[in-house]
Amino acid sequence: MKNYYINSLLHGGDYNPEQWLYDPCVLETDIEYFKKAHINEVTLGIFSWAMLEPEEEQYDFGWMETIINRLYENGISVILATPSGARPKWMSDKYPEVLRVDEKRNRFLYGMRHNHCYTSPVYREKTRKMNTELAKRFGNHPGVIAWHISNEYGGECHCPLCQEAFREWLKEKYQTIDRLNFAWATTFWSHRYNGFEQIESPSLCGEYGLHGLNLDWKRFVTDRTVDFVRHEVKAIRDAGSEKPTTINMMYDYKGLNYHKFKDVVDIISWDNYPQWHKKAEYLTAMDNGMQHDIMRSIKHQPYLLMESCPAATNWQPVSKLKKPGMLHLASLQAIAHGSDSVQYFQLRQSRGSSEKFHGAVIDHYGGSDTRVFDEVTRVGKSLEQLQEIVGTQVEAKVAVLFDWENRWAMEDAQGPRNKGLYYKETVEKSYYAFRKLGLDVDVIDMEQALESYSIVAIPMLYMFRDGFENKVRTFVENGGTVIMTYWSGIVDDTDLCYLGGTPHGLMDVFGIRSTEIDALYDWESNTSIPVKGNSLKMTSEWKCKNLCDLVKTTSAEVLAVYGEDFYAGMPTATKNRFGRGNAYYICADFEQGFYDEVIKKIVKDSKLFVPVKSIPNGVEVTTRSSSENKYVFIQNFNMHSVKMEIDTRNSQIILGNYKKSTIEGFDTIVLKLKR
Amino acid sequence: MKNYYINSLLHGGDYNPEQWLYDPCVLETDIEYFKKAHINEVTLGIFSWAMLEPEEEQYDFGWMETIINRLYENGISVILATPSGARPKWMSDKYPEVLRVDEKRNRFLYGMRHNHCYTSPVYREKTRKMNTELAKRFGNHPGVIAWHISNEYGGECHCPLCQEAFREWLKEKYQTIDRLNFAWATTFWSHRYNGFEQIESPSLCGEYGLHGLNLDWKRFVTDRTVDFVRHEVKAIRDAGSEKPTTINMMYDYKGLNYHKFKDVVDIISWDNYPQWHKKAEYLTAMDNGMQHDIMRSIKHQPYLLMESCPAATNWQPVSKLKKPGMLHLASLQAIAHGSDSVQYFQLRQSRGSSEKFHGAVIDHYGGSDTRVFDEVTRVGKSLEQLQEIVGTQVEAKVAVLFDWENRWAMEDAQGPRNKGLYYKETVEKSYYAFRKLGLDVDVIDMEQALESYSIVAIPMLYMFRDGFENKVRTFVENGGTVIMTYWSGIVDDTDLCYLGGTPHGLMDVFGIRSTEIDALYDWESNTSIPVKGNSLKMTSEWKCKNLCDLVKTTSAEVLAVYGEDFYAGMPTATKNRFGRGNAYYICADFEQGFYDEVIKKIVKDSKLFVPVKSIPNGVEVTTRSSSENKYVFIQNFNMHSVKMEIDTRNSQIILGNYKKSTIEGFDTIVLKLKR
Amino acid sequence: MKNYYINSLLHGGDYNPEQWLYDPCVLETDIEYFKKAHINEVTLGIFSWAMLEPEEEQYDFGWMETIINRLYENGISVILATPSGARPKWMSDKYPEVLRVDEKRNRFLYGMRHNHCYTSPVYREKTRKMNTELAKRFGNHPGVIAWHISNEYGGECHCPLCQEAFREWLKEKYQTIDRLNFAWATTFWSHRYNGFEQIESPSLCGEYGLHGLNLDWKRFVTDRTVDFVRHEVKAIRDAGSEKPTTINMMYDYKGLNYHKFKDVVDIISWDNYPQWHKKAEYLTAMDNGMQHDIMRSIKHQPYLLMESCPAATNWQPVSKLKKPGMLHLASLQAIAHGSDSVQYFQLRQSRGSSEKFHGAVIDHYGGSDTRVFDEVTRVGKSLEQLQEIVGTQVEAKVAVLFDWENRWAMEDAQGPRNKGLYYKETVEKSYYAFRKLGLDVDVIDMEQALESYSIVAIPMLYMFRDGFENKVRTFVENGGTVIMTYWSGIVDDTDLCYLGGTPHGLMDVFGIRSTEIDALYDWESNTSIPVKGNSLKMTSEWKCKNLCDLVKTTSAEVLAVYGEDFYAGMPTATKNRFGRGNAYYICADFEQGFYDEVIKKIVKDSKLFVPVKSIPNGVEVTTRSSSENKYVFIQNFNMHSVKMEIDTRNSQIILGNYKKSTIEGFDTIVLKLKR
Repeated sequence: MKNYYINSLLHGGDYNPEQWLYDPCVLETDIEYFKKAHINEVTLGIFSWAMLEPEEEQYDFGWMETIINRLYENGISVILATPSGARPKWMSDKYPEVLRVDEKRNRFLYGMRHNHCYTSPVYREKTRKMNTELAKRFGNHPGVIAWHISNEYGGECHCPLCQEAFREWLKEKYQTIDRLNFAWATTFWSHRYNGFEQIESPSLCGEYGLHGLNLDWKRFVTDRTVDFVRHEVKAIRDAGSEKPTTINMMYDYKGLNYHKFKDVVDIISWDNYPQWHKKAEYLTAMDNGMQHDIMRSIKHQPYLLMESCPAATNWQPVSKLKKPGMLHLASLQAIAHGSDSVQYFQLRQSRGSSEKFHGAVIDHYGGSDTRVFDEVTRVGKSLEQLQEIVGTQVEAKVAVLFDWENRWAMEDAQGPRNKGLYYKETVEKSYYAFRKLGLDVDVIDMEQALESYSIVAIPMLYMFRDGFENKVRTFVENGGTVIMTYWSGIVDDTDLCYLGGTPHGLMDVFGIRSTEIDALYDWESNTSIPVKGNSLKMTSEWKCKNLCDLVKTTSAEVLAVYGEDFYAGMPTATKNRFGRGNAYYICADFEQGFYDEVIKKIVKDSKLFVPVKSIPNGVEVTTRSSSENKYVFIQNFNMHSVKMEIDTRNSQIILGNYKKSTIEGFDTIVLKLKR
Repeated sequence: MKNYYINSLLHGGDYNPEQWLYDPCVLETDIEYFKKAHINEVTLGIFSWAMLEPEEEQYDFGWMETIINRLYENGISVILATPSGARPKWMSDKYPEVLRVDEKRNRFLYGMRHNHCYTSPVYREKTRKMNTELAKRFGNHPGVIAWHISNEYGGECHCPLCQEAFREWLKEKYQTIDRLNFAWATTFWSHRYNGFEQIESPSLCGEYGLHGLNLDWKRFVTDRTVDFVRHEVKAIRDAGSEKPTTINMMYDYKGLNYHKFKDVVDIISWDNYPQWHKKAEYLTAMDNGMQHDIMRSIKHQPYLLMESCPAATNWQPVSKLKKPGMLHLASLQAIAHGSDSVQYFQLRQSRGSSEKFHGAVIDHYGGSDTRVFDEVTRVGKSLEQLQEIVGTQVEAKVAVLFDWENRWAMEDAQGPRNKGLYYKETVEKSYYAFRKLGLDVDVIDMEQALESYSIVAIPMLYMFRDGFENKVRTFVENGGTVIMTYWSGIVDDTDLCYLGGTPHGLMDVFGIRSTEIDALYDWESNTSIPVKGNSLKMTSEWKCKNLCDLVKTTSAEVLAVYGEDFYAGMPTATKNRFGRGNAYYICADFEQGFYDEVIKKIVKDSKLFVPVKSIPNGVEVTTRSSSENKYVFIQNFNMHSVKMEIDTRNSQIILGNYKKSTIEGFDTIVLKLKR
Repeated sequence: MKNYYINSLLHGGDYNPEQWLYDPCVLETDIEYFKKAHINEVTLGIFSWAMLEPEEEQYDFGWMETIINRLYENGISVILATPSGARPKWMSDKYPEVLRVDEKRNRFLYGMRHNHCYTSPVYREKTRKMNTELAKRFGNHPGVIAWHISNEYGGECHCPLCQEAFREWLKEKYQTIDRLNFAWATTFWSHRYNGFEQIESPSLCGEYGLHGLNLDWKRFVTDRTVDFVRHEVKAIRDAGSEKPTTINMMYDYKGLNYHKFKDVVDIISWDNYPQWHKKAEYLTAMDNGMQHDIMRSIKHQPYLLMESCPAATNWQPVSKLKKPGMLHLASLQAIAHGSDSVQYFQLRQSRGSSEKFHGAVIDHYGGSDTRVFDEVTRVGKSLEQLQEIVGTQVEAKVAVLFDWENRWAMEDAQGPRNKGLYYKETVEKSYYAFRKLGLDVDVIDMEQALESYSIVAIPMLYMFRDGFENKVRTFVENGGTVIMTYWSGIVDDTDLCYLGGTPHGLMDVFGIRSTEIDALYDWESNTSIPVKGNSLKMTSEWKCKNLCDLVKTTSAEVLAVYGEDFYAGMPTATKNRFGRGNAYYICADFEQGFYDEVIKKIVKDSKLFVPVKSIPNGVEVTTRSSSENKYVFIQNFNMHSVKMEIDTRNSQIILGNYKKSTIEGFDTIVLKLKR
């Protein structure tokens, strides 16, 4: 388990005692309450810059030292943050270059957070000094177990410094301006550049239609942010601290390709704020589960749930209370998917400013006799019961491909539907179909290896990067099963269309060619009708919407056909034997049931291990594995109890109640079995 | 009746004869028509600056003098406006500082109106000179009865001059930067200021999440505007005119706390443009009635209806004609609620520019043989019949609290629901419940005294200013009845959360503590079920939405409880005896019927005077009082006639038809009775 | 047929071979495919500036010469574009003045297209030089048949150069500032100008409520664009080329009054991208047909369909495939309405940038064995069959008035409904009613002559320009029939309201006066009830919405009356005999059926020639005429076949199938008959 550094399941979260220094009793009350709630960790120092360096180069670490020591004395460890997520006012006043510039080329005023220029030499130097000071003082403190670098990185800056850095980045990538002109198809609309110095970042008041430029800009923004993280980490390492690092990522954040961060941090962590009770809990859990799996798949290691809300948030349109039991259920879902922590934002609620009503373990009332405090304590106790799970892996044999850069390109492309491509939703359909069978799923991107999987779903992979088609070809040749959909293999990695037919490079693998794609209005649909005697034994009719691919088969078997419109009778799903594997192609945006049927039948053919035979509606089954044991989490996301047959002869229930074949509403059962 | 200066019911409105100077016949026709329509007043000079000072320091008052004289000779008095609502072009060209700067720090170009920097020394000096000249010439003219200062003040300016003034304002308020930092909770997100000079006004491209800053900025904007009004009035007084002053306020205008203007003007006036015929007239009348009562309650004196539309407006999305009788009904509603005038925008319609299609007494056709002219004439006649009412008061024994600063804070707070708090709608529910009983209602803010009332409703008073909790405590101790709701007493006057439990300072008065608040999605609801044998005799079930407070009682009686969700059985309404009074607490956002039931039963217990026993649906009953008489207005907002028993033995009908116990559709009856 | 220069029906479109110079095979393949598809024309050079002048004053025309020659050798002619629709980057970098400035006075960055300052001396000089070079080299090439000036002109610039030009334009128009002040009613809101130098263009951050200013600005923008076109054409003529010129106009483009371009170009052409299959095809065809007729009516000559999409676009929200037969049907609709070409954007699809997925004759796949290629070929064949039609006219005896400046004024006016005037939709109702009878219709503006028509519909002519009322009066006096509606004759040509009653100058002609106009909410309606024994024999009840005019009649006959509201019984439609003609007035926004009934009965009285007796639903009938023949196009816009009686005794079917009185779905029949 190299590169992984957390030794026990953590229970804790964001803590800002610098807001309460005026009343020393608060710290002591908090420590007492933390112990009561089985909290063993706090994340300290996020947004503390103004308290650590109140005036330029005048540092004050005393208050922090006191707090770290008091926590350590009480058995509570600290994940220490660098404070670069928000700047003090004096810095923006003295060095306006640290302020970000928007795409209209207007510099922001001081305010809010997460809005620094990552290129600015001043901001880099100030960050370096601060991190150095922090690391020198606390980087080897026994109470400090890890570094939390900055906070929720995001956004982009269009200042002259960033423009210059962008040009350098392009020069390195393309070497000559002719190669850039070809890659971006600049001859269109007379947009040819005579030199790199002519290039400017995309802007709604300038150029926003050159897709190659837009895409490279997004890549540059990710690279710039990675570079800034590297810069922050380097300062810590240079100052002699070797504790592991993490950055806290966000739910479905489109602005950064998180995969690119896998080598600059030691641990992946993320902030998880689902809107429970808005739709059926199970649907929220599925959606949320996929995000957990994305995070885990970045490094294929356990990760941390860095933030979650113990009560209701305050920034969602409607901030609903979690019903009794929901916090426990959601917290253990994270553990089930591979997290080694349950952490909250926030341990004590702020008195003022924009997050003062965000839920907390200790609220404004200030007592420990609250419903939320009891729910948190229950989570703490369960984590103690499950300590042996720390560091165990999730071993997925199936994967779904979900690629950031593909999404950027496809959503910018101006294609058949400019509102309503539903990329994420389409990925989820394959993911859900696998999860309903109790299969653990990796959610990977195009740069990751495929060979360890039996089945890989590749929905809407509009863009093929770096010869991805060859990866697929080899995977199928060697016996893998691939399920690809419409609108795949259309463009290369600078969004230049492939000539000669699509899906590019895979027409023989799938035995088809896509000839046209029809877009449907929101109120339209078509149907799929199974072909009699098809080899997958499809039997049901299904509805599709939005996009319908019109393919011609060469060697593929037609499994089902369209029922309507002028392309009635053309294929909706095909299967092609290629090498030792199978290549399935799905032609249209079908409803969930279609995916459920197709994937269930493909999985049946594949003889994959399934931990539980039959899973009732609303129940999620997930497995973590050590070298000796498997830990099967069975979570009932229904509010009511369900009947479910579990074979307990060779296993032990280490959490939860299972009596008379029944699991209570919102309950979690953890089964331990020898491998 | 000190501080009140109007001696007869006025009938008239905005008049811009400077637009017609090219044709002298127009003035003479207008005077003839005014007399025909029983118009006895015109408001002159609004937006006349370019005609009064066509070039810098070159004044031309001749045309105005002629007009005032001609009107005076014909018995028509003038309310004279200062022209500062719009500037001439030459001023903006020569002195760009008079142009406002928006929150993104961009200076506006010249155009439109109501967009001057109120700090600009140039604008203040130009205004001072203009007002001085006007006052010298017309300030003691016998035809001039009052001053109309500028027009519909509003908006804000973020120019460097205003930034500096804001910093001065903050320095005066907080004295030290530490106190400001504490009050605004600036430690959150590292936002601490090292000095007042670091502070900038809120901006969407800078700081907008620091609620204390946002709130103080709004207060500053009000104070700045008040200061500008004071400046305008001073010029008039310094030039020797002692006529009363007014500013025309607007319907539900959030930008300024109108209560703060009560000492700088002599008379309150406002502009009233309800959208009649959009929903049931009675609902519009209720909504509108509350605005009348807000205006009256600012000074607790008769006020003026400064603008209303004799026909259809032109700036509403759909500008509907008023149906026959509507103008008369709406005009007398103003009188019923305490207005001593019915004034129109506009007497003669402009030929061009953005309000050319706004309804007028005299339209582009130009004849007096129009339907609208007849409707106006009918109003004029009725006002003449009711002249004895001038100066009489509305004596309310119940009040509803509706506080501007509370609204600013609550809507900015980022709390349980960020779209859909429904503060105004919730206030209206209490207001409507009282009004349906025929009770006159004051609509007051937190700074006003409570002691003169029997019952005070305090809905959603999120913020307590200046120890407001003590005012409530004393009021109840002394025998008052208070009805407070959920989401009250949460923060102090800089939006800093109270610690130790809410409603702050009143947990013993209400005998409860609020523990959590649940937010409901728009499609969700809960119910209230009465507790058997409750002392208020509540018997009905009611639906609630949006927000549900979860309270624990200490000494309070539970009147009713939730029917659903995990908090079923917790209270929805409580009653606590405290001192000699009663404190009711309503836990959720209930439908109107709930308020109707609760308030009807509370009023029944209170033995308040009710002018009419039983009021049919759609009828509004309002009372004005002199030292000797009461004048009861009974207005039928239904298009059809209604049966209604009125005890006419000791009263006299001085307006309207009442035969066979019937009031006609859209008719108004005025009853005069000895006190 | 003076001023008209095209000698055969063209089939072709936009072609950008400069994007494929790296592969010379592409041109040869394209030529082969063009011939296969009966393509006889390409439009070359649109957006080629960066390839023609890669660096300042370094021209490269070699590639273009090769291409024109190769096409010519293969019998394919060229319409040659000036490249001013998009600039090279070097130009914007060196001369920022060529970049447009928006109404907030921010200069755009480089990017996209169609965004040059048309005043900039630099841009004019660069364009002059480029056009001169192009014309010298290719202006007399036998393969070049016409000039395509720039591309889809549009937009506006607020830079200092344009401000100055606007002031000059105003000075020329008004001569004195007093006349401008009067015309714009600047006394309102103190907006008087002391001199032309004080005037600035309208802006949302300055003046946007002065309707006269807004209107003159829009006129200026059109004039500026016309002037730029004139400048471009002059360069070509000065260089010795006399080939005809055109600019490609757009569907319902509000930004420019296209009628003003009629004298600066030789041929009208436009780009037509209907959203087929979104609603019933017939409705789309009607809408589209009106746009064709607008274009034809600008010069009353055949025009060109310069762009249309052979497959699906990529810029519509949903880019749907055309169903089989649709392309042929839509292409021939253009011919039927007066086009002498069917041209596409684009012949070969781009590989990259923002239009890479826009449908093309040759797509990324690159074969000629596609469904779209077959559809295009079918169009090519039909055009060859119809070659004798080239240059024939459409001779309309009825006209509908649709005026750009009227629309600008009315939509800016702030009147009875500020969202939902439905001008275009109201014009369409009259247009559709005529078209359903098979009558050809001119769609003209106020500046055009009326005398050649029998019936003229004038819906919602809010603004009368240049004594238009006299034109109407004379037309009716001389025996014409006019059908006018509510909200007509309200303002003069600077948006100044007429005094003394409306419709201005025509109250005697129509025998009515409009007294008030009621606006209805979206959910409201009223009805029309025919008067017994009315002379038009109206018999049906109809529903109206949005706007209801309340008119008083003097001499007019009331045909029908309102059924509801307080104006029940007032007229909804009137008829007045005036001179030798008839003047109908429609009072409210009625449903289509009302127009169908009224117009059918008026046409019946008029004895106009109707080419076909009875037209089934969904069929469009259109006629082109030469001096000897008439060509009647009968197009079935239903997907199913219809029965229809056509008298073929004196005619010949030159296209399409007509058997057993049946026309197939989506088919076109062309009938040739002697005059």
